[in-house]
Amino acid sequence: MKITTLVASILMSVLLEPVIASFIDTGKDTSAYNRPLIHLTPNVGWLNDPNGLFYDKKTSVWHAYYQYNPNDTIWGQPLYWGHSSSKDLTHWEEHQVALGPQNDDEGIFSGSIVIDYNNTSGFFDESIDKDQRVVAIYTNSIPDTQTQDIAYSLDGGETFTKYKKNPVIDVNSTQFRDPKVFWHEETNKWIMVVSKSQEYKIQIFGSLDLKTWDLHSNFTSGYLGNQYECPGLIKVPIENTNDYKWVMFLAINPGSPAGGSSNQYFIGEFDGFEFKQDDSITRVMDAGKDFYAFQTFSDNEQDVIGLAWASNWQYANVVPTNPWRSSMSLARKYTLGYVNQNVETKIMTLIQTPILNNLDVINKVEKNNHLLTKNDSVITNFSSSTGLLDFNTTFKVVGESIDSNSLSNIEILIHSQMSNSSTESIKVGFDRSVSAFYFNRDIPNVEFNNNPYFTNKFSTYVEPSHYDEDDMPVYKIYGIVDKNILELYFNDGTQTMTNTFFMSEDKYPHQIEIASNVDGQFELQSLLIRELNN
Amino acid sequence: MKITTLVASILMSVLLEPVIASFIDTGKDTSAYNRPLIHLTPNVGWLNDPNGLFYDKKTSVWHAYYQYNPNDTIWGQPLYWGHSSSKDLTHWEEHQVALGPQNDDEGIFSGSIVIDYNNTSGFFDESIDKDQRVVAIYTNSIPDTQTQDIAYSLDGGETFTKYKKNPVIDVNSTQFRDPKVFWHEETNKWIMVVSKSQEYKIQIFGSLDLKTWDLHSNFTSGYLGNQYECPGLIKVPIENTNDYKWVMFLAINPGSPAGGSSNQYFIGEFDGFEFKQDDSITRVMDAGKDFYAFQTFSDNEQDVIGLAWASNWQYANVVPTNPWRSSMSLARKYTLGYVNQNVETKIMTLIQTPILNNLDVINKVEKNNHLLTKNDSVITNFSSSTGLLDFNTTFKVVGESIDSNSLSNIEILIHSQMSNSSTESIKVGFDRSVSAFYFNRDIPNVEFNNNPYFTNKFSTYVEPSHYDEDDMPVYKIYGIVDKNILELYFNDGTQTMTNTFFMSEDKYPHQIEIASNVDGQFELQSLLIRELNN
Repeated sequence: MKITTLVASILMSVLLEPVIASFIDTGKDTSAYNRPLIHLTPNVGWLNDPNGLFYDKKTSVWHAYYQYNPNDTIWGQPLYWGHSSSKDLTHWEEHQVALGPQNDDEGIFSGSIVIDYNNTSGFFDESIDKDQRVVAIYTNSIPDTQTQDIAYSLDGGETFTKYKKNPVIDVNSTQFRDPKVFWHEETNKWIMVVSKSQEYKIQIFGSLDLKTWDLHSNFTSGYLGNQYECPGLIKVPIENTNDYKWVMFLAINPGSPAGGSSNQYFIGEFDGFEFKQDDSITRVMDAGKDFYAFQTFSDNEQDVIGLAWASNWQYANVVPTNPWRSSMSLARKYTLGYVNQNVETKIMTLIQTPILNNLDVINKVEKNNHLLTKNDSVITNFSSSTGLLDFNTTFKVVGESIDSNSLSNIEILIHSQMSNSSTESIKVGFDRSVSAFYFNRDIPNVEFNNNPYFTNKFSTYVEPSHYDEDDMPVYKIYGIVDKNILELYFNDGTQTMTNTFFMSEDKYPHQIEIASNVDGQFELQSLLIRELNN
Repeated sequence: MKITTLVASILMSVLLEPVIASFIDTGKDTSAYNRPLIHLTPNVGWLNDPNGLFYDKKTSVWHAYYQYNPNDTIWGQPLYWGHSSSKDLTHWEEHQVALGPQNDDEGIFSGSIVIDYNNTSGFFDESIDKDQRVVAIYTNSIPDTQTQDIAYSLDGGETFTKYKKNPVIDVNSTQFRDPKVFWHEETNKWIMVVSKSQEYKIQIFGSLDLKTWDLHSNFTSGYLGNQYECPGLIKVPIENTNDYKWVMFLAINPGSPAGGSSNQYFIGEFDGFEFKQDDSITRVMDAGKDFYAFQTFSDNEQDVIGLAWASNWQYANVVPTNPWRSSMSLARKYTLGYVNQNVETKIMTLIQTPILNNLDVINKVEKNNHLLTKNDSVITNFSSSTGLLDFNTTFKVVGESIDSNSLSNIEILIHSQMSNSSTESIKVGFDRSVSAFYFNRDIPNVEFNNNPYFTNKFSTYVEPSHYDEDDMPVYKIYGIVDKNILELYFNDGTQTMTNTFFMSEDKYPHQIEIASNVDGQFELQSLLIRELNN
């Protein structure tokens, strides 16, 4: 079957489930060992940026769309909006493809969804519940132009009708994309942030009807990289206050300081026309290499909730998964707080909390006030594993200070099951002499780990959560591992590190071990390791 | 010999050469294989930040001081200013220790040197040549305070006398350091930039006599990390113009995006009181992990020349060298230019040019218009090696575009000599599907390479230097390898990557190979590989 024929059949039948293209090798299905259980993935095909995230108040359902190629497990056009939904942000169900392009060499690129409660667009009548007046604003990418287009749904986001007078914004640019739209109450209008990618401008537009847009201002800041993508702008509450700040999110790719793709953010004020940064500080969202194109959910008024694509353009197309490729991060709740950067200074920082609902705890290990010794690690002995495990520990550095020329570490090792008489492991560690956390995802047996861009060693400096009565530093770390992804949350989510990893084809995470290479220097004040099931 | 005794003897005899402490294992001398030939290193002991860099116009000699511990190969107090000089910025000669602290638990921390031509300080009389009125401004770090102190030299920077009324700035802080001072002609006064490290303030002071200082302003920007260190502020010429911009340099450690220590810079205006950034862009000086605490030379009026410490606090104390530890980068000349970030945008960027003088070319290999094939790499066959080699190539990507799901690379491999029947290699590569350069310094045989913070895979996106007549991208790369350090300069120094590496104890770089894993996709328009000797 030729691509064109296949695609045409999909285009004519967007109500159908995605077709599995013959050139996706479904015989080599790696899902059993490396497809995450609770991280959103497509059943078949390629996924990248999250799009159109919204909450349907009527049905209490969360919708996530995404850049989707059903025809292959690499990025390629025609590119669609895939669609999944969840009742709890933890368990996802795949729907039919939601939006597709006109022609094979085109793509429905990233964008967002708003609920047009007051029918400002005129697309709806009274038969459509106010909470389900779904309008998608997206980039139509055709060979010589990227324009901002809109489409509406009369069935709660399942299918869409494109606006006849598209595009709604056309500035004759090939690098103009990723509109994120929200309702700005204070000035009673729609606001769009959209990226003029190669000019490093986040452009802010305003509209009364989602159809006619006026350019209000441009914003440039932070690390430039090679291109700006996927901006976002939302009020984020400041913890323990009734106050909030506006946060501008920005993805850059390629050219991040750690290589490839990453997300940064800026904190400031927004008056309906212009975003003004409170300072000129560049803040990075996540210290790993797999957290990109972050977007927040529309129309859930209580909390700021968002998720990101958990991959990196440097290697996304070649990671060893099949017949699916790429997942999202977990949905996370976002707040702001003043976080210690060092003993003298706190700065306003995003705090990220993973959202986990309705999971069964199959097994657990708990320890309290446990002093680690060199020859006696804490190790789980769960008889089987789902590949979904989490750990939560508060540990204290104790004892005399040590030489700066030898490492004294605590390590959290994630081991695969034993098969073919070998075990594979990744690890998170903290060394006392360096006072930074590190992560190592090198698995030498796996060919893909030789990919020159697949960085295997990471580190991030984390200021202690607090100091105990003896002035010794205390750190907290929560980690959740789900088949081939590890999300780390340091000190209650004031820093995170998100990375995928790839074990051999017969292996996935089964066992967690907490070890130290020294005696009596790390005390687990508390430890809880759980084996979970969805 | 106890430390205290040893130190006391050094303090009383600063005119002597540094004493080799008995606890430096001189038996295990790794200098033969891994001590660089032209990168400034101490003969014995520990080196970190460059200090007091200045050019003596009378003698035409360049002076470099540095944080120095003669008593051990790890950082420790008492901490001194070591001293080396060079006539050509390529060959360095070690002098006696220049400055030392009062007590064993103190340090003469980083700082700078100015030529007090007009004797504003009153330290000099007519017997001292105007071009040799050397005043050092440094941080005196004592257990409860860091103050800014000054000292003057009547012998051209060989020995110093501390000012009797030190400190000249004391704000009762333990985190206040690294003064860089220069003469600001427009307002006829001395300017100091100095770091309030844990408050993230670069403080700007003014003085008429180097003794009394007024606080003018504070500057905060960029990526914060855990601490600000080693600021610098200097006019940098804009290439092909008679214009210049002020550039503020800033080192952060720990907490850099790539882990540990790194240097950033900001471009703007300085009116003698306040530095104002032209934009809120965060620019990184070097894409490697070993470029920190950058400082420029004082009183060389023609060019802006500077160098950095070529290590990273995450592992500086434990790299396998002996009886010396750490080197500087090469001295580099700095200009500004408008550099392509992508096909639509140029931004003002530092351009770095390595300074290499008076080197002998022992051997060379040249190629022009050479199409690389899979089974026929270009490889040097130099009969011996000094460990000092450089390569300079302009290569063009040719042929049909390729699948994004397979790598098509050109690699520059730096091989050790064969010994114990094995060769060790590091490599620089460029992959066509990802369009980024990568570097790999992993040498599995060497125990130290397992250090969790010694990142082995790096990458950096580089926009093509230009496109040829067929619209195919052309890249330039110059690299210089000197025993255990590789400095990479992309596209005429518009981006750099500086990294140390550590081969086995009997090995150092001997051979360079240019290879490709595909046929006919990379054309070496020009290639020159040289074996050099100092």
